[in-house]
Amino acid sequence: MDFDKFEDKLQLVRRSIKEALDGSPERLYDASLHLTSAGGKRIRPLLCLLSCEAVGGSIDDALKTAVAIELIHTFTLIHDDIMDKDELRRNVPSVHVVYGEPTAILAGDLLFSKAFEISRKETIKILAKAAAEICEGQEMDMSFEEAGDVTEKEYLEMIRKKTAVLLQAATESGAILGGGSDQSDHSSQVKKLSDYGLNIGMAFQIHDDVLDLLADEKKLGKPVGSDIVEGKRSLVVINALENLVGAEKEKVQRILCKEDNSPEEIALVVRLFEESGAITYCRDKAEHFINLAKSALDDLEESEAKNDLMDIAEYIIDRKE
Amino acid sequence: MDFDKFEDKLQLVRRSIKEALDGSPERLYDASLHLTSAGGKRIRPLLCLLSCEAVGGSIDDALKTAVAIELIHTFTLIHDDIMDKDELRRNVPSVHVVYGEPTAILAGDLLFSKAFEISRKETIKILAKAAAEICEGQEMDMSFEEAGDVTEKEYLEMIRKKTAVLLQAATESGAILGGGSDQSDHSSQVKKLSDYGLNIGMAFQIHDDVLDLLADEKKLGKPVGSDIVEGKRSLVVINALENLVGAEKEKVQRILCKEDNSPEEIALVVRLFEESGAITYCRDKAEHFINLAKSALDDLEESEAKNDLMDIAEYIIDRKE
Repeated sequence: MDFDKFEDKLQLVRRSIKEALDGSPERLYDASLHLTSAGGKRIRPLLCLLSCEAVGGSIDDALKTAVAIELIHTFTLIHDDIMDKDELRRNVPSVHVVYGEPTAILAGDLLFSKAFEISRKETIKILAKAAAEICEGQEMDMSFEEAGDVTEKEYLEMIRKKTAVLLQAATESGAILGGGSDQSDHSSQVKKLSDYGLNIGMAFQIHDDVLDLLADEKKLGKPVGSDIVEGKRSLVVINALENLVGAEKEKVQRILCKEDNSPEEIALVVRLFEESGAITYCRDKAEHFINLAKSALDDLEESEAKNDLMDIAEYIIDRKE
Repeated sequence: MDFDKFEDKLQLVRRSIKEALDGSPERLYDASLHLTSAGGKRIRPLLCLLSCEAVGGSIDDALKTAVAIELIHTFTLIHDDIMDKDELRRNVPSVHVVYGEPTAILAGDLLFSKAFEISRKETIKILAKAAAEICEGQEMDMSFEEAGDVTEKEYLEMIRKKTAVLLQAATESGAILGGGSDQSDHSSQVKKLSDYGLNIGMAFQIHDDVLDLLADEKKLGKPVGSDIVEGKRSLVVINALENLVGAEKEKVQRILCKEDNSPEEIALVVRLFEESGAITYCRDKAEHFINLAKSALDDLEESEAKNDLMDIAEYIIDRKE
């Protein structure tokens, strides 16, 4: 998918982020801008702006909240990298590697504060609720690394909170700010766009888990197989452990439990995941959520923004990075 | 000062905190409640409620925001303890000591999210701005530990951000929610209560710095002299280094720069601080801010809440913990 067509919108977003993060002490603001300067697709603010347009609103109505959502996203990346001890993100050293943990914690906190400083009042409660659920999801994710027996249902609830709610907040907020039809009605525009965001969010995380195993390291911007090294319970792992038996299952479990895995061990696990059918299963599951997302938009009036949202849904499960 | 008279208000606050922090995963919510269960004076929510009453409002109007402010305060304590490697707080092990750093970071983030979830809409921007300034102040505080030459002016700006703005947010929010007279007017009730909060906040931090040197360890709930060990640039340190000369100045500088100080070294530094007049200077400075705070309330109509705010101003610089 060609994101160049969104360049006008993305430029507005980038400019607004810089305006929101212009302060002192310089070192703290530099740290808070570190990941933003390193790129990122800014898919969340884009979804917010497109959802606003899809219900007939102007992007001016949604810009501040769109930026606030990107700040919240960046805040979670910075704190997650500290918690997970991930040293690389978007092909650059993580914030805590460059600025140290104390300033990285603060940079995250600052981004979070700024998000609520700039967000439109109408969408603050949506953002705050999403942020709380992200924390719950991250705690679940960490606890899964210790728990041996995570079910698919538990995993889906975890990624709903950790990943999907923020994409849902983006599309729901955009629809509200664009003047979408009443929120309480289940067939309302706001509800439809909220469902769209939730479902692409679910697909996004499942696809991310697959990418972590199969992507090109340069494109991914971080080491391939890092989830295996960290022992993360992704849907691939859960499904593979359901399907594998005997010596192969034991091999996978042993490698997932230890921390310093060789490239050969990682390659072996990836091969066993593929042979078990787990990767195909996850690709199908991601596609299922994308289909739900797309059908949520069925009744929406035709528009360029609606088409873009349809394309983005496809992109979510096609992307290589 | 006897806080028992506020027991009804404090009970409401405690109950509301528990209601706000009732969720799962249990471990994350336990971590976010850890410091709250260990006590604390809850002076910020109290100030918010009293400011609301002092302008004729009912505490129901301000309760949610009062609780939100306490959650923000607790969030900063948890993250500060990680950054400063402080292992004791309110006489119990810090959150990161009990739950580990990852969950402690998240528990702080969760409290922050919940604060914005529950805050009254009218006061969200005030809280968000205060939170951003707290981050700036904490970064300044950390950078001072490395900088040799911090001026009194820089220090005062640091504590304004790190400490005073949240007390100011508490009193200002309370006044707004209580229906205090127009915010834009400089002689308005909202402005007066905002000034009161700012000035008691300045005094609060200066008194805290003195307490860190002179308090009873049990009452303080953390080791005495920890600021010396951490090399923090408090107003006592800044003023003492201005007044001391020769061998005594060098001794103090040497001890502040190293990390493992003996009890004798800490006692020596405290004695030199006293002899230099720095502690008297700080006590006078704190009193100066308290006088400003009290005179800000001069024009406010007499009420029990106003009297309580006057008493709390006195308490700020009399307290032993």
